[in-house]
Amino acid sequence: MAPVKVFGPARSRNVARVVLCLEEVGAEYEVVNIDMKAMEHKSPEHLARNPFGQIPAFQDGDLLLFESRAISKYILRKYKTDEVDMLREGNLKEAAMVDVWTEVDAHTYHPALSPVVYECIINPMMRGIPTNEKVVAESLEKLKKVLEVYEARLSNHKFLAGDFVSFADLNHFPYTFYFMATPHAVLFDSYPHVKAWWERIMARPAVQKIAASTAPPKA
Amino acid sequence: MAPVKVFGPARSRNVARVVLCLEEVGAEYEVVNIDMKAMEHKSPEHLARNPFGQIPAFQDGDLLLFESRAISKYILRKYKTDEVDMLREGNLKEAAMVDVWTEVDAHTYHPALSPVVYECIINPMMRGIPTNEKVVAESLEKLKKVLEVYEARLSNHKFLAGDFVSFADLNHFPYTFYFMATPHAVLFDSYPHVKAWWERIMARPAVQKIAASTAPPKA
Repeated sequence: MAPVKVFGPARSRNVARVVLCLEEVGAEYEVVNIDMKAMEHKSPEHLARNPFGQIPAFQDGDLLLFESRAISKYILRKYKTDEVDMLREGNLKEAAMVDVWTEVDAHTYHPALSPVVYECIINPMMRGIPTNEKVVAESLEKLKKVLEVYEARLSNHKFLAGDFVSFADLNHFPYTFYFMATPHAVLFDSYPHVKAWWERIMARPAVQKIAASTAPPKA
Repeated sequence: MAPVKVFGPARSRNVARVVLCLEEVGAEYEVVNIDMKAMEHKSPEHLARNPFGQIPAFQDGDLLLFESRAISKYILRKYKTDEVDMLREGNLKEAAMVDVWTEVDAHTYHPALSPVVYECIINPMMRGIPTNEKVVAESLEKLKKVLEVYEARLSNHKFLAGDFVSFADLNHFPYTFYFMATPHAVLFDSYPHVKAWWERIMARPAVQKIAASTAPPKA
C-alpha cells in the first residue's frame, strides 16, 4: 500500500510535529515538499487538501486532513499499540491529563516560547527580518512564569501527563528544539526538572532522528 | 454520589463551553462561582485546581482538571452513549474530522471572531473599556475569509465534521452566541449555509438552556 503523505516543508515546525508522530509509531510515510515561496500552499491542489491554504496537510488513501495536532492524533490513534499509546484514550483519567497538558502547550507554553523562536531564528535567519528584542524580552518574562509551573509539575511526574510519555510531551518538541538553538536556551538551566524532562524527550530515537533532519539554520 | 463541579463564573465563555457539554450528556453538575474581582482565581484553593490560576477548573471526585477543551472532552468521553457521542473516538475517520474542525475553531475561527466579542461586549459592558473600532474592523475582515471556507464546507455537510453534530460544533457556541448580540451579527446573513448551521446548533435543547442562563449583558 502507498504510504501516507505529509505535505509541507520538512523544516516547518508544524510539519515536524506530524513527522515526529509518524516516527514514534514507526509508520511508513512520504513528505511532499510544498514550496511556500512559489505560493504552492495557495494552489488549487493544496487548497483541496486544506481550504485555508496552510501547511501541513495529510493524505491517507482518500482521507485528507489538515491542522497538525488533528493529523498527529489521527496517526497516534491509527498506529496505536500496547507499547506506543500516546493518547491513552482507553483510560479516562490518563486521556484527560494528556488533553490538559496538550492544551497547556497550545494556549500557554507555545504563545510564550514561540515568539523567541520567531525573533531569534525564523525571522533573522530564514526571512531576513531583524530580531525585535522587546518582543523577546517580554516573551521570556512570560515563559519564566510558565516554566515555574512546569518545574513544580515535573518535580512530581516524569512526564507532563504523568509517569508515561504522551502526545502532550511530543507537542513541545518542535518549538522547544529551535528555542534551544537561541542564546536564551540557558533559561532552562534554572529549572532542573524541566531540563531533565527535556533531556528525556531529546533522548528518544524518533526525536533524535527528526532533530537531525530538521536542525535549525545557523547564524 | 456528589455531582461533578465546575469552578468559574457561569457567564465566562470558557465555563459555558464546559457546562454546555455537561448539559448535552445530561450529567448532574454544580457550578461553583469564582469571584474574579476578589482575585479568587489566584487563591491557594484555586491554584491547587489550576496552577496557572485560570478558569474554568473541574472536579470529579479526586480528579482535578483545567483547560476548558480538555475538561469538555473528559465529560464527553465519560458520559458517552450510543446516542450522544460527540468525539466519535471509536471511528478513526470521524474522530479525525472532529479534531480537524475543533482545531480550526481554536486556531482560525476563534482568533478572528472573539476580538469582536471582546471589543463590542466584554470590554465596554463588563470592564468599562471603550470599543476599539480598528480591532473590530480588522477582525471582521479576517472573519469573512474564515466564513467563506465554512460556507463551502457547510454546503456539503450538515455539521462541521460531517453529517453528525460533534464537539467541533459545540466549541463554536460560546463566542458565536455573544457575537450574535453585537451589531455585526448581520454578517452571517451573507453565508446562508453557515447561518442554517448556526440555527441548527441554537435549536438544541442544551444550547437553548445555556443561552438562556448566560445571556450577554445589554447595552
